[in-house]
Amino acid sequence: MKNILDRNQNKAEEVRRLLESRKVMMINIISSPGAGKTTLLERTCEVMAGEVRLGVIEGDVTTDRDAQRLKKYNIPIVAINTEGGCHLDSHSISMALEHFDLDSLDLLIVENVGNLICPSQFDLGETFKLAVVSTAEGDDKPAKYPMLFSEARAVILNKTDLIPYTNFRMDSFMVDMAAINPRITIIKLSALKGEGLEEWFSWLRMQLAAYSAG
Amino acid sequence: MKNILDRNQNKAEEVRRLLESRKVMMINIISSPGAGKTTLLERTCEVMAGEVRLGVIEGDVTTDRDAQRLKKYNIPIVAINTEGGCHLDSHSISMALEHFDLDSLDLLIVENVGNLICPSQFDLGETFKLAVVSTAEGDDKPAKYPMLFSEARAVILNKTDLIPYTNFRMDSFMVDMAAINPRITIIKLSALKGEGLEEWFSWLRMQLAAYSAG
Repeated sequence: MKNILDRNQNKAEEVRRLLESRKVMMINIISSPGAGKTTLLERTCEVMAGEVRLGVIEGDVTTDRDAQRLKKYNIPIVAINTEGGCHLDSHSISMALEHFDLDSLDLLIVENVGNLICPSQFDLGETFKLAVVSTAEGDDKPAKYPMLFSEARAVILNKTDLIPYTNFRMDSFMVDMAAINPRITIIKLSALKGEGLEEWFSWLRMQLAAYSAG
Repeated sequence: MKNILDRNQNKAEEVRRLLESRKVMMINIISSPGAGKTTLLERTCEVMAGEVRLGVIEGDVTTDRDAQRLKKYNIPIVAINTEGGCHLDSHSISMALEHFDLDSLDLLIVENVGNLICPSQFDLGETFKLAVVSTAEGDDKPAKYPMLFSEARAVILNKTDLIPYTNFRMDSFMVDMAAINPRITIIKLSALKGEGLEEWFSWLRMQLAAYSAG
């Protein structure tokens, strides 16, 4: 296992250097199945594809359903089918990158396989990790699965429109998050209902500006 | 990896023989984080602990929060902390079994780590796997993560009370499930709201009767 992680890390550093040389910011989105990664990506394509040159890598276990959902945005998409594998790794990303014209991209978003545990161990060469968690999963997810949340630069708390119908306690979620990662940015929104998206877009624009400023 | 799976399978067969010799039915519950495994277990303890001799093995990545939630039911519980590991295996179950008096048990429920992918590869020696999926995760989860759903004897579709507030399409879910596993039992309920639980208890009683009849 240590060997696998070491080889992944080496290739990730190579990917990171390549992307930096081409000035492409890469986000690695990680969440449980059904937290709303693809819906967030749809909303993000709708708005950001007109502002920046955007590409997507779609990781899926057995299907290419998520890649299909994004086709209408007319952006470059590469689908990686892990054939049962529980996470993406830097080698599959490196191969996927060969299908993009990196000089024509500003932002590459990777949608990892739906899994809150294994993907957090595998550096893909991303600029940063973005965690997505849905209010319907309960407020205890950061405390129970701290690996991802301690590393991510931001967490999107999705499906805020469902809070009135669940036993999600915001104070408990915020206290746990602060204990695990006091510097993390927390963005609350409902990707499906379109609520709170402006905060996400503003934050994303800030990250792009900071990245291109070097 | 093949080696790990082979060793797991051998130990799982040993666990299965041991449990059969003591007439203990074991259920391996698998779901994404936050689908509602622990809440279902709470409801199940409330009702079934008075009918059968029930024990629980609680798998968690870093905490023992789920085991704590079940303490009030005064049943034997063993917590397994996987220390970051993404699934339970038959060796940890075998060691946990040493802490139970198996002759005083009819039913042992294992709550696996919250992960829809890796746990489905590891036979624990269970009588059957039970999948839990929440309506808030979306109707496409069986199609996107078929490994678990093709093996499970039943799937609990939890959080049915949230359907009016989501884009979950029941017909799409049912069609996909039938394609993946036409023999699977589908039980719809809301563990939090207490709706539909009787169907789950009836089905569970049937499985227990069939198991003890041999």
